[in-house]
Amino acid sequence: MPARDGRSGRDDERARAYIEGRDAASRPRRAHPSPRTQAAEPEAVAATPKVPREQRLYGLNACLAAFARRPEALRKVYLTEARIPALKAVLAWCVKQRIGYRIVEAADLDKLTASRHHEGVCFDLLPPTPLSLHALLERQPRAPAPSLLLWLDGVGNPHNLGALLRSAAHFGVGGVIVSAQAGLDVSGAAARVAEGAAEVVPLVQADSSEALAALHEHGYTLAATVPRDGTPLYATTLPPRLVLVFGAEGEGMSGPMIDAARLRLTIPGSGLIESLNVAASVAVLLGEYWRSVKMRECPA
Amino acid sequence: MPARDGRSGRDDERARAYIEGRDAASRPRRAHPSPRTQAAEPEAVAATPKVPREQRLYGLNACLAAFARRPEALRKVYLTEARIPALKAVLAWCVKQRIGYRIVEAADLDKLTASRHHEGVCFDLLPPTPLSLHALLERQPRAPAPSLLLWLDGVGNPHNLGALLRSAAHFGVGGVIVSAQAGLDVSGAAARVAEGAAEVVPLVQADSSEALAALHEHGYTLAATVPRDGTPLYATTLPPRLVLVFGAEGEGMSGPMIDAARLRLTIPGSGLIESLNVAASVAVLLGEYWRSVKMRECPA
Repeated sequence: MPARDGRSGRDDERARAYIEGRDAASRPRRAHPSPRTQAAEPEAVAATPKVPREQRLYGLNACLAAFARRPEALRKVYLTEARIPALKAVLAWCVKQRIGYRIVEAADLDKLTASRHHEGVCFDLLPPTPLSLHALLERQPRAPAPSLLLWLDGVGNPHNLGALLRSAAHFGVGGVIVSAQAGLDVSGAAARVAEGAAEVVPLVQADSSEALAALHEHGYTLAATVPRDGTPLYATTLPPRLVLVFGAEGEGMSGPMIDAARLRLTIPGSGLIESLNVAASVAVLLGEYWRSVKMRECPA
Repeated sequence: MPARDGRSGRDDERARAYIEGRDAASRPRRAHPSPRTQAAEPEAVAATPKVPREQRLYGLNACLAAFARRPEALRKVYLTEARIPALKAVLAWCVKQRIGYRIVEAADLDKLTASRHHEGVCFDLLPPTPLSLHALLERQPRAPAPSLLLWLDGVGNPHNLGALLRSAAHFGVGGVIVSAQAGLDVSGAAARVAEGAAEVVPLVQADSSEALAALHEHGYTLAATVPRDGTPLYATTLPPRLVLVFGAEGEGMSGPMIDAARLRLTIPGSGLIESLNVAASVAVLLGEYWRSVKMRECPA
């Protein structure tokens, strides 16, 4: 057990040895890679097509959730000394699997993650295997059983994306679809805010028109959420098989998505401000779906 | 009109003149104060007790909302050239009232606001006159009419505070109470995320035990939101005169507040993750109050 005696000096020595062993075969090591050098790495990796691009994850809950779900994806671990107890199982795994880990200063993590919100830990790991829309739909309950999905037509702010993934996990949403055109990815920042939820809710990139056809075929109704002039949320009955569509902050939803949606929902309010934050809108709608559909199916 | 010809050079000249005129009487100017020098200023101001400490606000919607509600509080305006059209009315007011404004580079605003999310504008302005709990309660509908307030027992993250204020404004919450002990303030970051909502929802600092007595006297029920083992939200009837109490992220609510609450509410969910984000919890509860209480009073 590397952390047994709680001495970072020895841990660091051992970590270095492991890292050295691993890295000799790949690329030259840097003591404390800066965000700039990190950003340049994916290109270097892309030159060897079989090595998938690694993702950089930070935040304690986000890292622990990734480790719990896919420990085999782990490639490198950076942590502060204070985090050794919380990451004991991770370090034991690293030793067993000969995965490099390193005890670093908080300032090093600031640089590695380009954030001050790393909470003392950062993982490099292989990204989850991409899921196709087909595979996602196969995982959902068959029609006419209730099933809820989200479709993000934009949503660029990582804080909003992370917050809405956390709400989606809480309310048991089956998955999140994003247009391949939008090319949305869960960044390290979004995953941190999601507090592990990014590991729970599958994110699927799909071609918009193909996705619309497949969803229709599987009995889903699309509902666009619009800041005004839609059907008031609490004056409508939500369909049990539902795809809630949310637009980008600021710009809102694209014309084709609004046209494709059979329902247009508006969350009623005081009118004192222009609109709700997108993550807040998601939370309100998921809560209402839970209340009106899940409770209708199995009142408890 | 300072921005008439759209030339920042001339505007800047005039702005400088105004600033020089104003600042000659107070304290020495710095060309582009860094966050560090800004942070030091309140102490200098505190030496002259009659000058209230200024607040620094940024983000377009936050600044426009402050200007719309309390233009007389404005003390200084910094903006990028690209923001001149959006801030035309503000600049006209500055000229008329002899308030200094300055056209700066985005990098200067990064420093002034210690953020990259300033959206090209930053105001220094007098803080709103503090409202007492007594005054807040006088503003609310009298018992037994419905009235909803929030109580924050913690909530330190400015992004969460801003998001929650925006939801509170959307759903017409009468005010937000924070324990004087907690000393919570709406920072520039929180106000930006609130997108103007911080100007709409009054924030009141109050001594906890006095506040509990006053709220009781005015017919309010306190409901604490807890991540587990509370009454399921959708299996209860929310009282029309309600104070929703939310705890700090991570630590949750303090013992005395949980004891003081007559209701303990839990938002049901999948159990896949530990809890909802506090701003998401607020959104879900405010939506449910709107649905169940407001709709009951005036179904529409």
